[in-house]
Amino acid sequence: MRPEHGGNLAWAVALAGCSPDAILDFSASISPLGPPKGVLRAIASQLGNLRHYPDPDCGELRLALSHAHHLPPEWILPGNGSAELLTLAGRELASLAATVVLSPAFGDYYRALKAFDAKVLELPLISPESLGTQGRVSVLSLEEGWGFPTPRDCGLLLNNPHNPTGCLLKREAILPYLEQFALVVVDEAFMDFLSPAKEQSLISVVEKYPNLVILRSLTKFYSLPGLRLGYAIAHPERLKLWRCWRDPWSVNSLAQAAAVAALQDEEFQQQTWDWLPPARNKLFQGLAQIPGLQPLESTANFLLVATQQPSSQLQQRLLTQHQILIRDCLSFKELGEHYFRVAVRSDTDNQRLISALSS
Amino acid sequence: MRPEHGGNLAWAVALAGCSPDAILDFSASISPLGPPKGVLRAIASQLGNLRHYPDPDCGELRLALSHAHHLPPEWILPGNGSAELLTLAGRELASLAATVVLSPAFGDYYRALKAFDAKVLELPLISPESLGTQGRVSVLSLEEGWGFPTPRDCGLLLNNPHNPTGCLLKREAILPYLEQFALVVVDEAFMDFLSPAKEQSLISVVEKYPNLVILRSLTKFYSLPGLRLGYAIAHPERLKLWRCWRDPWSVNSLAQAAAVAALQDEEFQQQTWDWLPPARNKLFQGLAQIPGLQPLESTANFLLVATQQPSSQLQQRLLTQHQILIRDCLSFKELGEHYFRVAVRSDTDNQRLISALSS
Repeated sequence: MRPEHGGNLAWAVALAGCSPDAILDFSASISPLGPPKGVLRAIASQLGNLRHYPDPDCGELRLALSHAHHLPPEWILPGNGSAELLTLAGRELASLAATVVLSPAFGDYYRALKAFDAKVLELPLISPESLGTQGRVSVLSLEEGWGFPTPRDCGLLLNNPHNPTGCLLKREAILPYLEQFALVVVDEAFMDFLSPAKEQSLISVVEKYPNLVILRSLTKFYSLPGLRLGYAIAHPERLKLWRCWRDPWSVNSLAQAAAVAALQDEEFQQQTWDWLPPARNKLFQGLAQIPGLQPLESTANFLLVATQQPSSQLQQRLLTQHQILIRDCLSFKELGEHYFRVAVRSDTDNQRLISALSS
Repeated sequence: MRPEHGGNLAWAVALAGCSPDAILDFSASISPLGPPKGVLRAIASQLGNLRHYPDPDCGELRLALSHAHHLPPEWILPGNGSAELLTLAGRELASLAATVVLSPAFGDYYRALKAFDAKVLELPLISPESLGTQGRVSVLSLEEGWGFPTPRDCGLLLNNPHNPTGCLLKREAILPYLEQFALVVVDEAFMDFLSPAKEQSLISVVEKYPNLVILRSLTKFYSLPGLRLGYAIAHPERLKLWRCWRDPWSVNSLAQAAAVAALQDEEFQQQTWDWLPPARNKLFQGLAQIPGLQPLESTANFLLVATQQPSSQLQQRLLTQHQILIRDCLSFKELGEHYFRVAVRSDTDNQRLISALSS
């Protein structure tokens, strides 16, 4: 019954004994600013077109993404959430000798890899001795951690910024691995939360690396996870192959229309970039002052917090006493009871969390 | 550029040189009666919840389907359109020695099977000598057509009613194959167009056959293909495995809410069952009176029509001169230019088609 991922409200509602609307959800790392009104209008305006099949080519959406990223449309494949595309990546990674995953890793990475019997090699980002402390999340150091002989036959699956630590890898830190690994899949699900001046996306170099796949989400930044929308950026030949692995209509019409509208909303984008760093900083400071808690520095819209009290106890207390849902980290098996994760929300909500944790 | 499936409006619009709304689409076999108003209301009421992830268990929807089919919820797996579930079926069928497919078959069957390198054996439903005539579509006769030695190691993939012929197999005609084949996948995408008195679904016997998978669609009957929603009915162990092959959030929240509302709309269901047989009969009669055309008897909401004039020429003429889109059958390779398929639409629309074809 305990959910494996964040955002499972049905479970939380049963435990808290309240309505879904009454739950303050810090477990899913979704922006509190959206969805933008123009996006909701775009969705509503498409309801009359539901009687038609979705455009299997996602023509208009790919064009919009093509403009946004200065890439030909053939380099872009929209999906039913980036999770669908992760599954396709899992299938391709499984054809290699092994796939290196930075651990702790998003639980669905293991699902997508296991779904095709991929061999997984874990490279720990947090040393065992620093568990349960603010610790030091080491920047990706494959040189040290790498015990497998031939990266040339292997895949590398990582996310940047890293979930759940919020740690950001510089573009230059990843580039060498593109020379070494047969296939590198970089999940940039949270990269759009960084402003253009700070982001470290590999999209700008993708045309140079036929062995690079970038996964992006549109539903975290624009607060639309219920609708499902992500996209892959990779060599056109690879994307052509992936399209044969799934049905032609996987991206629903409302998601296509919503995404086109979202990409045009520069005001919302700027508003998000202006909001996040100070909001995150204030939440960080508030959490750091609570005895027994140590948040980690993050570049994303969530904070990983080391806790002396077991996280599942804390989660249960917050839910039953305050209708607040945090993300325990039991599904990140290395983290166990030592950490929880919270989204950065509005100042009022963040303050409610801090008060509840302090009580 | 020519679409492989029906319902590709973007292509039609370019050729007809008009707006998408001006196209009269007979190519996609979607009910003209929907979407039901209550379903659109259910979708609109969920827009405020898009900031939450979809329920990965589709709890409410599975309960509604469980009531509708008198089956425990564990026997039901909703999907992002039945096409997603077809892909999962393709993966499982590919693990068998071969899969028997009745031809002509829906093009996406071949895509789903090829995606996992399945060996395909085709069993023709229409004899080569009767091509291009009203012919006689033989009822499934595996005894005659079956040249492969061990059905025990093979899968069988068929649809009932059959697309594109509209031919219906009796329940009893399929049951023997459940004893012979390792896995039988029956795509019942159009079965809900038959009234309870006439339908031949295998859902009522599924609990007796652990090697049976039934695929259903909700988007053709309720006119919601843009939203994507189908479901599989099969043994709970099989569905548990299938869930690991895809991500947990593949069914979007709006589709879940729409489906729950749709299943409750008994008035719409009755209206559809009352409308279809006389409307189809009238369209059949109208087409049969046009020289050079011979429609086939159908139990579904579409008609396959044998044509003396090549179907792609006919399609082009109807599109450019009348903004009417019919489904050529080039993707059903056995049918080639000899047939086209049309959906049964409203009386006015059907009359417009007949006039255009007569002119």
